[in-house]
Amino acid sequence: MAVGLVEPVRLEAVPGVRLGTARSGARRPAGDDVVLIELTEGAHCAAVFTRNAFCAAPVVIARTHLGRLAPRYLLVNAGNANAGMGEQGLHDAVACCKAVAHSTHCDAGRVLPFSTGVIGERLAVDALSGAIPQALATLRADGWMAAAHAIRTTDTLAKGASRQVALGSGTVTVTGICKGSGMIRPDMATMLAFMATDASIEPSVLQHLLAGAVDQSFNRITVDGDTSTNDACVLIASGESPVVVDSIDAEHYAVLARAVLEVSQHLAQSIVRDAEGATKFISVRVERARDEAEALRVAYTIAHSPLVKTAFFASDANWGRILAAVGRAGVSGLQIERVNIHLNDLCIVRHGERDAGYTEAAGQRVMSGEEITVTVSLGGGTRDAAVWTSDLSHEYVRINAEYRT
Amino acid sequence: MAVGLVEPVRLEAVPGVRLGTARSGARRPAGDDVVLIELTEGAHCAAVFTRNAFCAAPVVIARTHLGRLAPRYLLVNAGNANAGMGEQGLHDAVACCKAVAHSTHCDAGRVLPFSTGVIGERLAVDALSGAIPQALATLRADGWMAAAHAIRTTDTLAKGASRQVALGSGTVTVTGICKGSGMIRPDMATMLAFMATDASIEPSVLQHLLAGAVDQSFNRITVDGDTSTNDACVLIASGESPVVVDSIDAEHYAVLARAVLEVSQHLAQSIVRDAEGATKFISVRVERARDEAEALRVAYTIAHSPLVKTAFFASDANWGRILAAVGRAGVSGLQIERVNIHLNDLCIVRHGERDAGYTEAAGQRVMSGEEITVTVSLGGGTRDAAVWTSDLSHEYVRINAEYRT
Repeated sequence: MAVGLVEPVRLEAVPGVRLGTARSGARRPAGDDVVLIELTEGAHCAAVFTRNAFCAAPVVIARTHLGRLAPRYLLVNAGNANAGMGEQGLHDAVACCKAVAHSTHCDAGRVLPFSTGVIGERLAVDALSGAIPQALATLRADGWMAAAHAIRTTDTLAKGASRQVALGSGTVTVTGICKGSGMIRPDMATMLAFMATDASIEPSVLQHLLAGAVDQSFNRITVDGDTSTNDACVLIASGESPVVVDSIDAEHYAVLARAVLEVSQHLAQSIVRDAEGATKFISVRVERARDEAEALRVAYTIAHSPLVKTAFFASDANWGRILAAVGRAGVSGLQIERVNIHLNDLCIVRHGERDAGYTEAAGQRVMSGEEITVTVSLGGGTRDAAVWTSDLSHEYVRINAEYRT
Repeated sequence: MAVGLVEPVRLEAVPGVRLGTARSGARRPAGDDVVLIELTEGAHCAAVFTRNAFCAAPVVIARTHLGRLAPRYLLVNAGNANAGMGEQGLHDAVACCKAVAHSTHCDAGRVLPFSTGVIGERLAVDALSGAIPQALATLRADGWMAAAHAIRTTDTLAKGASRQVALGSGTVTVTGICKGSGMIRPDMATMLAFMATDASIEPSVLQHLLAGAVDQSFNRITVDGDTSTNDACVLIASGESPVVVDSIDAEHYAVLARAVLEVSQHLAQSIVRDAEGATKFISVRVERARDEAEALRVAYTIAHSPLVKTAFFASDANWGRILAAVGRAGVSGLQIERVNIHLNDLCIVRHGERDAGYTEAAGQRVMSGEEITVTVSLGGGTRDAAVWTSDLSHEYVRINAEYRT
């Protein structure tokens, strides 16, 4: 049950990008589990991959291919992560790229593979290859919604977002889809996001734009601190629109970056809202830190604390747990008497102690909501940062304990 | 239900140290909840306190008093942490020291206060002071077991250990007690340990000895990564024995340090074994790291991973989760193909992939035990480190979600 999340009503087509889906048979219950994304000739592609040293075979291959040639096709399969399979995994990922190349007469190095699903099982290359003709036959500009459905593993909903911005020389679209149930399953290895715009963006600018958006979105979510072997986030610039962004100082860079960030944040938050076992969506905002790294360190210490997360699950305004998390976050020279903590608009800690006007009843009222913002002011500087997380529920333990049984 | 833990059969008296207990009425169900430890004149005392910036009032006062005068009395109360209470808390902690000083005609600065229990409630100074005469009346050299019972909060068992070592000039005893249900409750703020030996140890040597033992014991346990506002560990050297240790190069230093370490490790492991909700006791050992910090970083990344911990709870030999945790531990230049992972003696990952001979049935067999050692060999260096932790169970969530309701 996703917290405050519904499927997108409409995902705008992005000129120069078409998406097709097919069924390889890996998904149970049966349904499309393969997505092919076709990029027009001349499109550029930027990507950010997992930092996990044990990255899956498709991550290795996609990174390599991306460094050599401009991609024409992105091939995604859901149900098998092709991770932990050593040389065999690399071979299988390349075989899938070749299958696409064979059907489309392009260089296999222009195909990027992406996989998500169970770790440690061999990829069904034949079934996947066999599904490619169907994926090609269904390619269409408005295939985003079908693709969002097909890349799901344990996601309860298809996740996507679109933004359109009117720029001097026309309207530019940014559309993205993603899958991931809150990073809580490296086994169902985990987050994939595909975004596209029709603006024409120079490759190094595109990478810079994507890295900035990811830093403020997918890198600001946590469910349990675990990161997956398969995480990947791609941004395509098809160049079909007359809007050109050839440097980070270009006229339209900021507006476009804003649109990509909004789509990225919507997608990232969708993952937290759909985290297995989640009953709450929690924003942790740290203010008045000396620098962003300090703000993030405190925010993540709170967001990762099982004690804080179980308190949210229990709708218990347990200020002692939040305070203790702040206290162990390693802020050098922290002055307790300058620390204030709010739950939404309710002050629970003022000057390092329980606020004099705070009542358990008021705390309970805020905590019973589905969406809660914790704001911690450190009072030591001027920098802010926010991260998003979920609570820790019985259901989380049940799902992750029983996952393979 | 503690994992593989029983109460100590016998705790040896330490000449020069007497312990008394009393009842202030804070404990529910009723029982002794106050401990007074008397040190002979001439004893020395070393202590290590929580690094949490929000340390409780008794920690502030104990640290201050310890820096000024040699302690004669340690006063401990269970049930109220006297944390998060600002100036009032400091005042109350001092008032308790004064009450002991008044009854014993010693300087209040020679009394160290320790509190454990609920955060954010005012200490019942009158009730605590009122219990002091009874605590004094019950002082006895063999009061360790009664004290171990009295300092419990949510601990299901009294925790303690003794070692005796024959040194050239006589037999030296090391006895210790502790309380703590696995650091999982900053609210029941959390770990206290009191150890004593009758050796005569120079103060700076004593502090060095304690710091070394804590680093290899209490600093190597984790249940959920949360540290408490009240954690304190004390080592008393009464000097009643003829054995003198006046430098770290002294003849008997190493043997004595070993005995203190063994007691410390037993106590620390007792806390993990009694962690609320724990059904497993897990040792995480990382070998062939480049340095100890790297070994510990990998060990804690595994030990803190909710996914790994739920897998242990489920007796699921989920090698993908352990591998993914190793991969995200930030080991620079990690060579996947050199990583091996064992569960007890069973190899599950060899050269970065599932071991060819591994079977789910064999993994299941190891995981169904109550005590499991995970050994990760990084293959990059020569340093080892181990930490101890518990699994993450339904019961953990239940206890911590329902704690205040």
